[in-house]
Amino acid sequence: MVYYLGLVGIAAFSITGVIAAGKKDMDIFSIVLLGVATALGGGTIRDIIIDANPIFWIADLSYLWVSVGAAVLSFFGVKFVRYVLPLLLYVDALGLSLFTVLATEKTISLGFSNTVAVLMGVTTGIAGGMIRDILTGRMPLLLGREFYATPALLGAILFIILEHFFPLHEFNRVYAIGIIFVLRAFAIQWKLYYPSWLTYVDRK
Amino acid sequence: MVYYLGLVGIAAFSITGVIAAGKKDMDIFSIVLLGVATALGGGTIRDIIIDANPIFWIADLSYLWVSVGAAVLSFFGVKFVRYVLPLLLYVDALGLSLFTVLATEKTISLGFSNTVAVLMGVTTGIAGGMIRDILTGRMPLLLGREFYATPALLGAILFIILEHFFPLHEFNRVYAIGIIFVLRAFAIQWKLYYPSWLTYVDRK
Amino acid sequence: MVYYLGLVGIAAFSITGVIAAGKKDMDIFSIVLLGVATALGGGTIRDIIIDANPIFWIADLSYLWVSVGAAVLSFFGVKFVRYVLPLLLYVDALGLSLFTVLATEKTISLGFSNTVAVLMGVTTGIAGGMIRDILTGRMPLLLGREFYATPALLGAILFIILEHFFPLHEFNRVYAIGIIFVLRAFAIQWKLYYPSWLTYVDRK
Repeated sequence: MVYYLGLVGIAAFSITGVIAAGKKDMDIFSIVLLGVATALGGGTIRDIIIDANPIFWIADLSYLWVSVGAAVLSFFGVKFVRYVLPLLLYVDALGLSLFTVLATEKTISLGFSNTVAVLMGVTTGIAGGMIRDILTGRMPLLLGREFYATPALLGAILFIILEHFFPLHEFNRVYAIGIIFVLRAFAIQWKLYYPSWLTYVDRK
Repeated sequence: MVYYLGLVGIAAFSITGVIAAGKKDMDIFSIVLLGVATALGGGTIRDIIIDANPIFWIADLSYLWVSVGAAVLSFFGVKFVRYVLPLLLYVDALGLSLFTVLATEKTISLGFSNTVAVLMGVTTGIAGGMIRDILTGRMPLLLGREFYATPALLGAILFIILEHFFPLHEFNRVYAIGIIFVLRAFAIQWKLYYPSWLTYVDRK
Repeated sequence: MVYYLGLVGIAAFSITGVIAAGKKDMDIFSIVLLGVATALGGGTIRDIIIDANPIFWIADLSYLWVSVGAAVLSFFGVKFVRYVLPLLLYVDALGLSLFTVLATEKTISLGFSNTVAVLMGVTTGIAGGMIRDILTGRMPLLLGREFYATPALLGAILFIILEHFFPLHEFNRVYAIGIIFVLRAFAIQWKLYYPSWLTYVDRK
């Protein structure tokens, strides 16, 4: 099940790459590459940092093909969908939730401390999207007052706590993924912001 | 011969870094660093992902010195050349062809599958240029409708096919490098675009 | 003492991340993440390239906590400080000097050549700041005519020379750190530029 959740996350991020390319007048192969970089980028950075060897998508090419397939399908599909851009935020939220929790779990399972696991979870969750945003010249989603990285942090910490009290319980990851997605969906829907004393606005 | 082709590719990308810096009012050492990052960046990412150890330019410092030398020479030379910017595209095409094919070959020789080899070839070919474009704040060459990544993909696949039918034949890489450069040169000269049904233009 | 100098460098770069975020209307957790990425980014790239394993901040979590702590403190502290932005340059200069010399030393101690050590020193010194500048959409400090990378280069070379003549002398790193900071401070104070024949201005 972890395995299929991972593939769903890969597909979700790959689709966000295609949607994000929408404003850029790109060709299909460059768009697919952008989708693949978005989908595999976060996990690649995680595997390089924790020295997991080989990288996950080299060990199992399914990840690569799913990201290619999702990108190609959404390239053709996206033309028939109106109002595509709001979708980007929700699909991105799905990828964020899945990647954060699965990466936290993988890092723990390789014997790293809880602190490293939480940081790697958050990094994996947000890095793919940041690569996408940098490559397409968008304002990274991270860099706003809206809740973005915070749901990932809370979900990763919740997962660690659940694993502590109910080791290896099969629903731990479902709860953690759920809390991230719900928090993020609330943030998108109601434009949840941090209160101003927890944001830094340059008043010059 | 592979070795010297590699050095030519290094020099070509290093020169594109210097040319790209032209609009930025940079000093010589920063420009040389930009050239070196462009020249060594793609191969470094490849070696990190496939865990080739040590990184190619640590194993043989010639790559580093060639990129430094090419950057310094082109820094002084470029002042005497008018119409420098169009040159950027052709020199970049040379680097792209050489890096893509040599990286595909290296990845296969380390025992990875053809799929990984093609992806690493394309990545190595385009990553250096993307680093350059991100650092100088340009629109990455990749992100246009013009053929850029596609010639690299076709060349890498051609190389795999040739190696399958004529294993280790010495002209395989020449054909593959040639096809990438020619396709890319055509794209530059005649502004080859994908047909519109294979590009995604946001109509909002 | 090296150890504590390293922590000071981490704190310095973490603070620059917070200061740089000032223009972006970001929330506290995203700002802390930006500080952490700035502080740990350069050393992480160094450790990945020279294959130091595990990465320094995984081997000793103090680095991570110091960067988090410095980011949180400066987030709240920065609101009470006027004229914050000029400070960015000096704190960045401190981080640059410390990271460059300590990374040069670490690379030598792992048995790499002097050339690789100098390049890794400069890379570690400037990479964290470049990550910060790319993520916040600033013009990277590197990309100006002002002395930025050059002091790091000179300091790293001075360190190598001192180590050659006075092996393991305890003041070697102090001199090298000092020369980088002083050169950089002069550059900030008096807007030191390269002479025009050593800069490349596009005259089109």
